[in-house]
Amino acid sequence: MQNLSRFTGRLYPVSLRLTQIEGHRCYPSVADLPEPPDCAVLAVPAAAVQTQLEDCARAGTGGCVVFASGYAELDAAEPIAAQYRLAEISRASGMRLLGPNTTGFANFAIGAHAGFAEFPGGVPEGQAGIGLISQSGALGLALAQAAMHGTAISHALTCGNSADLDVADLLRFLAGQPEARAVALTFEGLSDPDRLVAAVRDTVKQGKPVAICRVGATGPGAAAVRWHTGTDPQVNFAWDKHLAEAGAHLVNAVDTLMETASFLAKSSTLQRPDRPPRVAILSSSGGSAILAADSVSRAGLSLAELDHATRESLTSILPNFASPRNPCDATAQATSHPEMIVRCADSILSDPAVDALLLPWGKAWNSGQFEALSDLSCVHRKPICLVWMSQWLEGPGAADVEACTGLCLFRSLLSCSAALASWHN
Amino acid sequence: MQNLSRFTGRLYPVSLRLTQIEGHRCYPSVADLPEPPDCAVLAVPAAAVQTQLEDCARAGTGGCVVFASGYAELDAAEPIAAQYRLAEISRASGMRLLGPNTTGFANFAIGAHAGFAEFPGGVPEGQAGIGLISQSGALGLALAQAAMHGTAISHALTCGNSADLDVADLLRFLAGQPEARAVALTFEGLSDPDRLVAAVRDTVKQGKPVAICRVGATGPGAAAVRWHTGTDPQVNFAWDKHLAEAGAHLVNAVDTLMETASFLAKSSTLQRPDRPPRVAILSSSGGSAILAADSVSRAGLSLAELDHATRESLTSILPNFASPRNPCDATAQATSHPEMIVRCADSILSDPAVDALLLPWGKAWNSGQFEALSDLSCVHRKPICLVWMSQWLEGPGAADVEACTGLCLFRSLLSCSAALASWHN
Repeated sequence: MQNLSRFTGRLYPVSLRLTQIEGHRCYPSVADLPEPPDCAVLAVPAAAVQTQLEDCARAGTGGCVVFASGYAELDAAEPIAAQYRLAEISRASGMRLLGPNTTGFANFAIGAHAGFAEFPGGVPEGQAGIGLISQSGALGLALAQAAMHGTAISHALTCGNSADLDVADLLRFLAGQPEARAVALTFEGLSDPDRLVAAVRDTVKQGKPVAICRVGATGPGAAAVRWHTGTDPQVNFAWDKHLAEAGAHLVNAVDTLMETASFLAKSSTLQRPDRPPRVAILSSSGGSAILAADSVSRAGLSLAELDHATRESLTSILPNFASPRNPCDATAQATSHPEMIVRCADSILSDPAVDALLLPWGKAWNSGQFEALSDLSCVHRKPICLVWMSQWLEGPGAADVEACTGLCLFRSLLSCSAALASWHN
Repeated sequence: MQNLSRFTGRLYPVSLRLTQIEGHRCYPSVADLPEPPDCAVLAVPAAAVQTQLEDCARAGTGGCVVFASGYAELDAAEPIAAQYRLAEISRASGMRLLGPNTTGFANFAIGAHAGFAEFPGGVPEGQAGIGLISQSGALGLALAQAAMHGTAISHALTCGNSADLDVADLLRFLAGQPEARAVALTFEGLSDPDRLVAAVRDTVKQGKPVAICRVGATGPGAAAVRWHTGTDPQVNFAWDKHLAEAGAHLVNAVDTLMETASFLAKSSTLQRPDRPPRVAILSSSGGSAILAADSVSRAGLSLAELDHATRESLTSILPNFASPRNPCDATAQATSHPEMIVRCADSILSDPAVDALLLPWGKAWNSGQFEALSDLSCVHRKPICLVWMSQWLEGPGAADVEACTGLCLFRSLLSCSAALASWHN
């Protein structure tokens, strides 16, 4: 009920023991509610779930969320049968079921956080939100905590054992939600992988990018999937191929999923090349610029060949000991004269050979130039990826970068290069 | 002078313009000092460097730090010749030279921070310090900022153009410094790679691990190295082989260098197997546990096969819907009963088949069990790698983990698995 405190719709707590919760009058049963609920959240132990679910079905409830665990994830006959019964009750009545063994869902756009964990989220005015879908609730929470340092999250949806609704259904829901400009999705098992592939294809076709990290993608990982959610892992490496063909951005390292999705959300309105982007690199740290060149090169991307006019322009801006090339080392002088980086970025982005600018950012600080850089990305319609080289990961300036619509923040060159490598049409 | 405020030795500022700096009386020239300095820091423009360096040599100075840039990194005849002259002056007098084009060095053990940038550092009582060596000053600063979230850094040494002292010399220095329990090293070019290989071999033989991230390890990266530091990149992929054979831990992704070095420092006193470690995984998040299994498996490591007694013990500790296997999913119940994780970890570490425990940690919080887990690592003499799955990267609890001598903090499963894969003898 506390998680639902910002919900703008009507709330009806049901409890036999309590007369009110958080200022809301309690009803003794679902049958006693003044109207059929659109959504019922069953925060009851497994033993009480089936009866309550039947009550909800009879009351004409739109959908139910079941938190309780102890179902198919136990991989034993009776719990699997119990889950099957829940699915049958829902199916027979046309009521949809989220769970069991789920932490619920949060739609931050309407304050509808129907879950038992403290998922942070929300999209500040003008920012590009990410819709997060995770089969695992705990993993979903870990990823959603990106909101604590400024990542804009519009939805956080978890489906647990997926007795009825699975990640494919949740993705189709997000496809219709304008607040989610891109989707970050992670899942462990699916009864029908083709449904996800189709949902990805349709979502991407609507111009909404989808980043996916698959859980249990190796032999030992897949073996553990059955114990955890009770779904068949179907270790099928063809999935990755099908998902990629459908337009998904596959992410191997889960710790880079949210940054990748944020990049996709922010760059979704920019000019996207139909071949791998040619990248320019600009930094006040020569060492970081070279590491960026290494990283881009390892990802199979090419450095853009700057034209004569761009080099002339860079020469006029930079001190004589700087390199007016690509990677462009603006030297430590750019630390004392931070507007130099903005002028160099403008020159570089004006070059038709450049599709994207990678900006390794040395120490943690806000030079005061983030807004100006962000504007350049919007003017030139090319992405600027600011790679936070500082190990002060949430140090001064990081949240300012996240808040800029035209700056994509990465904390790893590897994930930045991987995102750029899969960005083209 | 502010950076040297904690230095316990004698400080003599030299200035023609000023009579005192930060409360210290100024001398008009090096020749006027009351004693020959052990170290002179030349915070003067390039045009004034040679004269000052000659003065220092005549005064019997032990070594000089030269901040000025505009030397061999310009890749032009005169600046290269100017750098050569500086090296010759040092060599002829037996005075050592750090730089030019360096941000200087910091030995936090004695408060000797002889540099112009704000390098944070210091080793809290009882913690295992990391000695950081970076050819690039800006990159060194970015890495050293790990200290802002609790990483223990004993030294931060940068050498820039390496006209005399290079990363190999700095490594030999750290080999003799007990405050540095492991070394994190990054470099772009070397005139004599064999010296570094030999220094690595000797340092590792003394029981001090060395993690290395090479800058300019690809074709495009190597091409940029010459522009930046003026050293010959000598793109020689055999280097990595030689460095690895000498016992270095090679790190491809620079953003994981500090965590890897911290792991090596903390685990340097533990029981190290002579084959790749067999890993156990324990988590309250099933999804994270499976991702860890994927990651360990991709790194070529095996999951430990738990013996019967361990499984019995886990069964007695865990709820009936948890998995007493490897990966071990202690379920969300471990969030309400955090001591459960400690008891499971104790059982698992007692198993002779287990060499290391990987503990994916879901949301950002301090359960109050970090100290108890840390003690287990010390008792069993096996490392516990706590992988921070939360994207709230510096959220509650993270600094507490870093402060535990028996817990190795990683923010990425990939870097944790890579570190474990290269950990054995």
